[in-house]
Amino acid sequence: MHAYEQRQWQVKEYPFYPERMPHHETILTIGNGLMGIRGSFEEGYPGDNSTTLLAGIFNHKDGTLVPELVAIPNPLWLKITVNGETFSLSEGIILGYERVLDMRSGVLTRGVLWRTPGGTDLQLRFERFSSLADVHALALRVQVKVLKPGQHTVAVSSALDGSVTNPEGISHWAQLNGTVSGDTLTLTGVTDESGYRVGLASRLHVGGDSPIWADASSSAQVPTHRATVTLDGFEVLDVIKLVAMHTSRDAEDPAHAAADHLDQLSAAGYGALREAHVAAWADRWRAMDIIIEGDEVAQRALRFCIYHLIIAAPQHEERVSIGAKSLSGYGYKGHVFWDTELFMVPPFTVMEPEMARRLLMYRYHNLPGARAKAQEAGYQGAMFPWESTDTGLETTPRWTDPHPVTGERIRIWTGDNEQHISSDIAYAALQYWRWTGDDAWFARYGVELVLDTARFWGSRAEFNAEADRYEIPMQIGPDEYHENVDNSVFTNSLVQWHLREAMHVWDWLAAHHPAQAEQLKSALSLDGAVIDQWKTIADKMFIPHSEEGGGVLEQFEGFFERLRPIELSDYTPRTKNMDWIIGHAPTQSTRVIKQADVVMLMAILGDTLGDTNFLQRNWDLYSRIVDHGSSLSPAIHAWVASRLGMVDEAYDLFLYSATIDIDDHKGNVRDGIHAASCGGVIQAVLFGFCGLKLINGELTTDPALPSHWRRVSFTVQHRGQPVPITLTQQLSQQSLASLQGSL
Amino acid sequence: MHAYEQRQWQVKEYPFYPERMPHHETILTIGNGLMGIRGSFEEGYPGDNSTTLLAGIFNHKDGTLVPELVAIPNPLWLKITVNGETFSLSEGIILGYERVLDMRSGVLTRGVLWRTPGGTDLQLRFERFSSLADVHALALRVQVKVLKPGQHTVAVSSALDGSVTNPEGISHWAQLNGTVSGDTLTLTGVTDESGYRVGLASRLHVGGDSPIWADASSSAQVPTHRATVTLDGFEVLDVIKLVAMHTSRDAEDPAHAAADHLDQLSAAGYGALREAHVAAWADRWRAMDIIIEGDEVAQRALRFCIYHLIIAAPQHEERVSIGAKSLSGYGYKGHVFWDTELFMVPPFTVMEPEMARRLLMYRYHNLPGARAKAQEAGYQGAMFPWESTDTGLETTPRWTDPHPVTGERIRIWTGDNEQHISSDIAYAALQYWRWTGDDAWFARYGVELVLDTARFWGSRAEFNAEADRYEIPMQIGPDEYHENVDNSVFTNSLVQWHLREAMHVWDWLAAHHPAQAEQLKSALSLDGAVIDQWKTIADKMFIPHSEEGGGVLEQFEGFFERLRPIELSDYTPRTKNMDWIIGHAPTQSTRVIKQADVVMLMAILGDTLGDTNFLQRNWDLYSRIVDHGSSLSPAIHAWVASRLGMVDEAYDLFLYSATIDIDDHKGNVRDGIHAASCGGVIQAVLFGFCGLKLINGELTTDPALPSHWRRVSFTVQHRGQPVPITLTQQLSQQSLASLQGSL
Repeated sequence: MHAYEQRQWQVKEYPFYPERMPHHETILTIGNGLMGIRGSFEEGYPGDNSTTLLAGIFNHKDGTLVPELVAIPNPLWLKITVNGETFSLSEGIILGYERVLDMRSGVLTRGVLWRTPGGTDLQLRFERFSSLADVHALALRVQVKVLKPGQHTVAVSSALDGSVTNPEGISHWAQLNGTVSGDTLTLTGVTDESGYRVGLASRLHVGGDSPIWADASSSAQVPTHRATVTLDGFEVLDVIKLVAMHTSRDAEDPAHAAADHLDQLSAAGYGALREAHVAAWADRWRAMDIIIEGDEVAQRALRFCIYHLIIAAPQHEERVSIGAKSLSGYGYKGHVFWDTELFMVPPFTVMEPEMARRLLMYRYHNLPGARAKAQEAGYQGAMFPWESTDTGLETTPRWTDPHPVTGERIRIWTGDNEQHISSDIAYAALQYWRWTGDDAWFARYGVELVLDTARFWGSRAEFNAEADRYEIPMQIGPDEYHENVDNSVFTNSLVQWHLREAMHVWDWLAAHHPAQAEQLKSALSLDGAVIDQWKTIADKMFIPHSEEGGGVLEQFEGFFERLRPIELSDYTPRTKNMDWIIGHAPTQSTRVIKQADVVMLMAILGDTLGDTNFLQRNWDLYSRIVDHGSSLSPAIHAWVASRLGMVDEAYDLFLYSATIDIDDHKGNVRDGIHAASCGGVIQAVLFGFCGLKLINGELTTDPALPSHWRRVSFTVQHRGQPVPITLTQQLSQQSLASLQGSL
Repeated sequence: MHAYEQRQWQVKEYPFYPERMPHHETILTIGNGLMGIRGSFEEGYPGDNSTTLLAGIFNHKDGTLVPELVAIPNPLWLKITVNGETFSLSEGIILGYERVLDMRSGVLTRGVLWRTPGGTDLQLRFERFSSLADVHALALRVQVKVLKPGQHTVAVSSALDGSVTNPEGISHWAQLNGTVSGDTLTLTGVTDESGYRVGLASRLHVGGDSPIWADASSSAQVPTHRATVTLDGFEVLDVIKLVAMHTSRDAEDPAHAAADHLDQLSAAGYGALREAHVAAWADRWRAMDIIIEGDEVAQRALRFCIYHLIIAAPQHEERVSIGAKSLSGYGYKGHVFWDTELFMVPPFTVMEPEMARRLLMYRYHNLPGARAKAQEAGYQGAMFPWESTDTGLETTPRWTDPHPVTGERIRIWTGDNEQHISSDIAYAALQYWRWTGDDAWFARYGVELVLDTARFWGSRAEFNAEADRYEIPMQIGPDEYHENVDNSVFTNSLVQWHLREAMHVWDWLAAHHPAQAEQLKSALSLDGAVIDQWKTIADKMFIPHSEEGGGVLEQFEGFFERLRPIELSDYTPRTKNMDWIIGHAPTQSTRVIKQADVVMLMAILGDTLGDTNFLQRNWDLYSRIVDHGSSLSPAIHAWVASRLGMVDEAYDLFLYSATIDIDDHKGNVRDGIHAASCGGVIQAVLFGFCGLKLINGELTTDPALPSHWRRVSFTVQHRGQPVPITLTQQLSQQSLASLQGSL
């Protein structure tokens, strides 16, 4: 491939800067929806964070409140020893180094030219992939050349390292049983509280199938084997390590399944596995690539976002979802937030609806947890947890970890009061339905998500008789800098919309799927009175407004009256968030917002909120006081800005979001990918710059492209049909000329 | 400016990684041909290399062989202290950081949001420029805001820091006399061996012209003054520091000149100085910008190369030249090599011929040194030094510094035997003449450069009676991995060409400037016999060939016979050079070449060397065994590859070169910019991709553009006329279709 094309598909690390390692470990993660494997080195490095995570394998250590993803035994572990000197980038001399993640094929390669402390030069080429064609398969290859005449003794050791722990040093394993049988390692484990069983099996091939034996260091926790070969100088030693992984989520006997699976992988061989993997990636890119002509920086960054959604999205089961940091790091412990439904699901809905459906099914299967949460809080219906894991129960911690210096702990209120997530899920289900026309799924599953969450709101909204209106007190909107506010305009507006949608859905179900309607009616205790009350609540919902800025939505009751203004431009350039800078408590009373809140509402409900002038006034006010203290924010602002015709401003926000991980803008990528930002970036392109929209079920576009983009092309799936779309700068110019700022 | 345009003009650092500081200090250098000021911080940082260099201010410490550029007293020194806490990035907390070098305007800015160790937040905005409109002027501005209500005590200290030394801790100053007079500092110094006098004068303005007093720490070596003001929270304190610098190269009394000049700067004020500076940059870019449409990475990197040539090129005098690392670092001690004439001068010749003429005059003025070198070695005419400084004498060190471990020193032979530089200078002079048609200059100065170096070769070539041919033993060609070889094909071919050009020049001079011809005839002892001998030598010059690869030029006698082959692909990826990896002595007998040698010859002499097939065979052979162990190499390969129609290969080489400094490919940018590579990159675009060439004095182009380049535009100066040129991809396609590989 031509260099110009190639670099729009690649993430390169060159040369090696140890201090940037944690960042690269995250951005070079490989995966396939089941496994996420950080871009750590096979041989390890001091202070690295070599992490393998498996979707849905959580553990609630000691039954404490906060379950987390479990550190899976490290399958990468592989050491090369030449004439007694073991390869390590922290010793000897690095004569050359290059790592490339080829996003097109999902293959991570590393070339190293290394001088041992004793002065022998080695050429090493590493390659790895986590198969997209077979989610249980991981394959590694190392080619070793000793750049010195004569004969050399090369030892290759490989392990499944069960000694790994989570960052706090916690092992979640009740037991780990490793075995070595010549070229084959197995390791089975059981998590100590959640009781998940995990089976790994690994096989090593060294050169012309040299004999392989258990290593002296081998243990039940770290089964290790080793081959020793004599290698001529300048001859290539080919080392292949295949790993199969199963869990009790997918197999009755994961150990057995892994062993069987490994035999299949061996029989196929590395080359065939790689070929199938690359073919699977080609298919996926055919569905999800978005081609931007005229902006290679944006193109590469956009593909980076798509890549990370692809490797995070479960293709193998529908009872797991995508955590806020995907499977690329321990950030947020693997928990699932609204990030999934409002940021990550929509791109799948539009381009790869099977994935979207699977993610929605995760919520469907977790309705029991949502009902339990509602019931516990004294409400009806389904109230989804703010943070969700494998159980579907609320898993938001109630307190922050103690501050390292002061010991202070801050109460986390989101699990109690960030309740809009129930409507966010309904939104995603409705969007999926409208784009796909998948009536069968919607009638059977989607309707229940929409209606039972509506039931929750029916019980949650409070009537203020004096004002003759419904109110929702004690909420947290997307702007988490202001907690436990009354009448969040985001939440109230979304609930109003949600209840009205629920009524339509109810009518549709009754008309088209009467049996299902009857069944739900009884299961959810729905009757005419409930539906009538939804109408009353929606009609009388209090939507706060303010006369500020010529008349705008008020983010919540008292926003303008009670909060002191702050000049955000004083705090530039800024990497830390404003609440970190001015403090948690003072932020609560300051007119700085964490992230798109009213602007988020503008993105999803668009021109139903008001006319162009009204929307522009809201933008003018709220976009000036936003901290972008969450990575979820700038892409949404890009979307809205482009719809309002402010294409240059939109582009800046878009590019910031799109490169937030590649360039580590916030300095926290070591904890994992900003997966919601990835989804937001894709939406900013599709719904923002391209103006993709359904109007009365019809697919429409209304491009407002950055002026240097010559063309944007992609394929959407609309009601089961692929629709290739190409938008040119010329179309965009015409469209912008007539743009009325309609969202 | 739109973000997409803007990033093609900017080098950004964000966030701050202390370990990358030495790299950024180099690439963010500002300058104007007189001064080069590395991108170090005003307030200093542990381990920084804050360096200011002035063109031509060398010193031969203790009269040792190797003169070097002198560390000029640091004019950046400025410290901000708020309520007793002094700003430093190595303390407190960096809440935000961004540095931007705007190459369009030559202005370096830095924004910092910083929390003092005591917990006070400061917003700081720094700006600096080294005026392109007034080479003696440096201007700094800092805006300080304390983000805390109430009143604050802000102290601003400014110094001219004469305590700086060269990297080895050497001060070159015999004396330094600093004075403080309220808002004005002066510092005069005399170098201890070369006797250069330097005068700096600096003035500080703080806020509404607060009173400024000598600081308690002030000394003759580091004159320092200080202002203390009371500043309200959130109010801006505006700090301006103006500096004037003169040397005994430009003024009888540099101290006086600097003081006078400073008064002028103060009278003009920061805003007017900045405006004039930005206008000067706009003019320069009008002359030298090369616009690439369709490749922002290449565009930015190319502008980076042009920027660094512009800030390195003397516009104020013609007795200084550009060192191998420009004025951006201590690498090569500021010495001038063939890098200038074959890499940096040609872009100026084509786009800004005044600069080229000035650089050639540096050589003209140094003819006495070249004659002395020839005479000392027993030859006639002018033999230019391999490394040149202010004196024009040979300043190549004879030995490397002792190896840190073994203490071994290696003999450096280039000063003795890399003699092709004399022809390189003749080449640059002839090229200037042909492009500009500047007959007056050429007759008066250029001819003497061409003829007296020809005279040197006339005395240097040795007749081999047995073979009836002329030979040149004991040479080093561009490939410095092979020293003291006989009959370097680069050197012999260039000498042959040089002698023939000299004959033409002589005829031209006699015909058109007979008086000048007479004068030179006597001054250089030229007569018919000398000229006749040039003809004989040229006609009988031994040009080594080999039957290798189907018949090619042989890099030097015995190249294929005596050297052992090596498989370079074994040594990838590679940051270190091959001679470092396999050792200096073994490299001498190995078939790996440091840099374009035969390929360099192909670049400059083109199709005079042979037909397309012959050139292609040479490329095929030599391009596969080149280490690119010099940054001079890949751009030249790009040039030749594009001329042979291998546009993709050319593009890869071009881009590697163009980003060698921005991306620090070799890990050595801390020592300074690869200035020759910058020039090579521009030539690769002009003479390579665009096929710019004079054919019988006519300007022609023959584009072979990378397939994603839509258009390349620039303006050349041809015989005194600006000629705007635009080459499109379409033109290129037509041209490539008919390309016969002609160079």
